[in-house]
Amino acid sequence: MPIELLSDTDIQRQLTTLQGWERVGKEITKRYKFADFRAALAFVNQVADLAEAADHHPDIIIRYNRVTLTLSTHSAGGLTENDFQLAHQIDRLG
Amino acid sequence: MPIELLSDTDIQRQLTTLQGWERVGKEITKRYKFADFRAALAFVNQVADLAEAADHHPDIIIRYNRVTLTLSTHSAGGLTENDFQLAHQIDRLG
Repeated sequence: MPIELLSDTDIQRQLTTLQGWERVGKEITKRYKFADFRAALAFVNQVADLAEAADHHPDIIIRYNRVTLTLSTHSAGGLTENDFQLAHQIDRLG
Repeated sequence: MPIELLSDTDIQRQLTTLQGWERVGKEITKRYKFADFRAALAFVNQVADLAEAADHHPDIIIRYNRVTLTLSTHSAGGLTENDFQLAHQIDRLG
């Protein structure tokens, strides 16, 4: 059974428990700025390990020292618990 | 002295020596598809090593097993020899 889409109310409540994530339509996104490219890439590799463990993968944009992560559950057509679980794990990276 | 922008003629000639790169305005871009996210990320890390060595950094987009690289010399406002040198190195990754 596919995972269920969250309601707008659930999404709003979940967002208040995260740090710096914004809802953009059917996705949540967060932007990061690091000291340099190397630091940005180290972060991306940490995120990648979490993504592999969760079998849930954010879209990742790297522009030198800036990284943008975007989460959505494409199979469900929007935001699910899986997106927020991974977002929480990413926030705990520090 | 800042590096010089390439002429349209130079850009066209350079593109013919690359594999799968397209010019999009002031940038060149190439799209890749890998077996899975892990393979995509391994490639990105190889590109990152080349980018650090060259001190020239492509924009990188990762969407699960798809990677898009975009090169431009922002300090010069367009395409320079540096972009094509790095593109050649990336093509040689195999």
